[in-house]
Amino acid sequence: MSSTVYLNGDWLAAEQAKVSVFDRGFLFADGIYEVVPVYSGKPFLLEQHLARLHRSLAALTIPSRPDPFWHDLITQLLERNAIADGLIYFQVTRGAEAQRSHLPQTELDPTIFASVSPMPVHWDIPAPAKVTLCEDIRWLRCDIKSISLLGNIMLKQVAQQRGALEPLLHRNGLITEGASSNYFAVKHGILYTAPADHLILPGITRMWVLELAKQLGLEVREEAFSATDLAQLDELFLTSSSREVQPIGQIDDIIIGAGRCGPVTAKLAEAFHASKQAYLSKES
Amino acid sequence: MSSTVYLNGDWLAAEQAKVSVFDRGFLFADGIYEVVPVYSGKPFLLEQHLARLHRSLAALTIPSRPDPFWHDLITQLLERNAIADGLIYFQVTRGAEAQRSHLPQTELDPTIFASVSPMPVHWDIPAPAKVTLCEDIRWLRCDIKSISLLGNIMLKQVAQQRGALEPLLHRNGLITEGASSNYFAVKHGILYTAPADHLILPGITRMWVLELAKQLGLEVREEAFSATDLAQLDELFLTSSSREVQPIGQIDDIIIGAGRCGPVTAKLAEAFHASKQAYLSKES
Repeated sequence: MSSTVYLNGDWLAAEQAKVSVFDRGFLFADGIYEVVPVYSGKPFLLEQHLARLHRSLAALTIPSRPDPFWHDLITQLLERNAIADGLIYFQVTRGAEAQRSHLPQTELDPTIFASVSPMPVHWDIPAPAKVTLCEDIRWLRCDIKSISLLGNIMLKQVAQQRGALEPLLHRNGLITEGASSNYFAVKHGILYTAPADHLILPGITRMWVLELAKQLGLEVREEAFSATDLAQLDELFLTSSSREVQPIGQIDDIIIGAGRCGPVTAKLAEAFHASKQAYLSKES
Repeated sequence: MSSTVYLNGDWLAAEQAKVSVFDRGFLFADGIYEVVPVYSGKPFLLEQHLARLHRSLAALTIPSRPDPFWHDLITQLLERNAIADGLIYFQVTRGAEAQRSHLPQTELDPTIFASVSPMPVHWDIPAPAKVTLCEDIRWLRCDIKSISLLGNIMLKQVAQQRGALEPLLHRNGLITEGASSNYFAVKHGILYTAPADHLILPGITRMWVLELAKQLGLEVREEAFSATDLAQLDELFLTSSSREVQPIGQIDDIIIGAGRCGPVTAKLAEAFHASKQAYLSKES
């Protein structure tokens, strides 16, 4: 069955939803996106996702819409598609103009596209996966969740060719993040993750795991881990809104923690599930 | 009057040409483009432009079409729009799929879009313009002419705010290029331009100017000029397919060559016009 999507005020069958070839999203990747997980019909950490959406738009000087607009979109997407557990996708571009020109010649109406796809709630810890070390070739504003994603795509393709779930990116010898995930490294009981500067996307799951780690009394350092020290790691895991906590058992030929999910990773994954459970049990 | 564009086998009025919101060009900037100037109905340096188009597609592992396909597109674009002097625009993306996923889940048919816009032939040397020094925040594969252009757009916006025609980009203290142009710096009669590595787009006009400079017996060094030495420059100019040779008289508060078009720039701009004239006079 075809899904129903939102595009500029209209509700359409997915395959009917089309944008002008002169949309600046299509010509210049001049836009941003956001992905919000929904469990039992409730968007998870929505406030944080919307705050990031507004921030991304502000960085591009594209006007946003107030929160109730996005709330309503989510409600309607879920209803019209009869989905309770899934991923909401929002994309906003600067809009379409009559002719291609690097700088917009007139004030444009932003293009707003939204869709939802089903995704079952996870309550288990996924099996440890493999990552592969790659040079981070992306731009220097990875803090903006932009649709200018070709670098990420090319890095994902390299990972796929090497039989890895994700590339583990390094810039000047320091690990930044994955192509669509953040990372946490564990060494001597200390949790390391790259600082939320212009070189990484400030992941909502990353932020939530940091919060849980503090609640658990773990020592946390927001310092990028060195690519040359990876073999010394006790544990490694990735975080993202769709994968939550993903244990990593292998970096290229390096086996991490005998290839099994380590105790710190397991503790945080369980805390994550518990916080999600608590969130879902709350009266809305 | 509306222009006629090509999209995936169809000829359409520009405002009727639409792509799926699930086109990977719109979702991920997963595509490339090319711009070819046409004078008196003849595409200028077409062989070089098509070679770069094929190279960009190969870098993304997107299949291209043979040269006659592109030749025919140009002929039809010019005829259907009754344009003799203009800019041809080609864009190819990996195509559309049923659902958003970073890695394509199936073999896709690339999306091909082509349009033309009128642009009068230039025979004069444009007035010297101002540029503004900016950190090059773009990715590390600027040699691919990709549509992942948000960095370029943001840098162009900064330039516009500062009253400059283009940003002059530096990475780690070395000048790379503009946001949609290459540069040539002149000091003590020697011509400098950044090497055609992964940090710049290998401009067709840049290559042509290098060829003309050699024919004129000028000393040329494909070495990036240092951002700290800009005040010592005798001349500076930008090159691009649409602007050809654009003299620069000012970099922020630094005036170059008394703000006038210098002799080396003028000589190369005249050689460029002569080569274009010779090209247009040739029997096709």
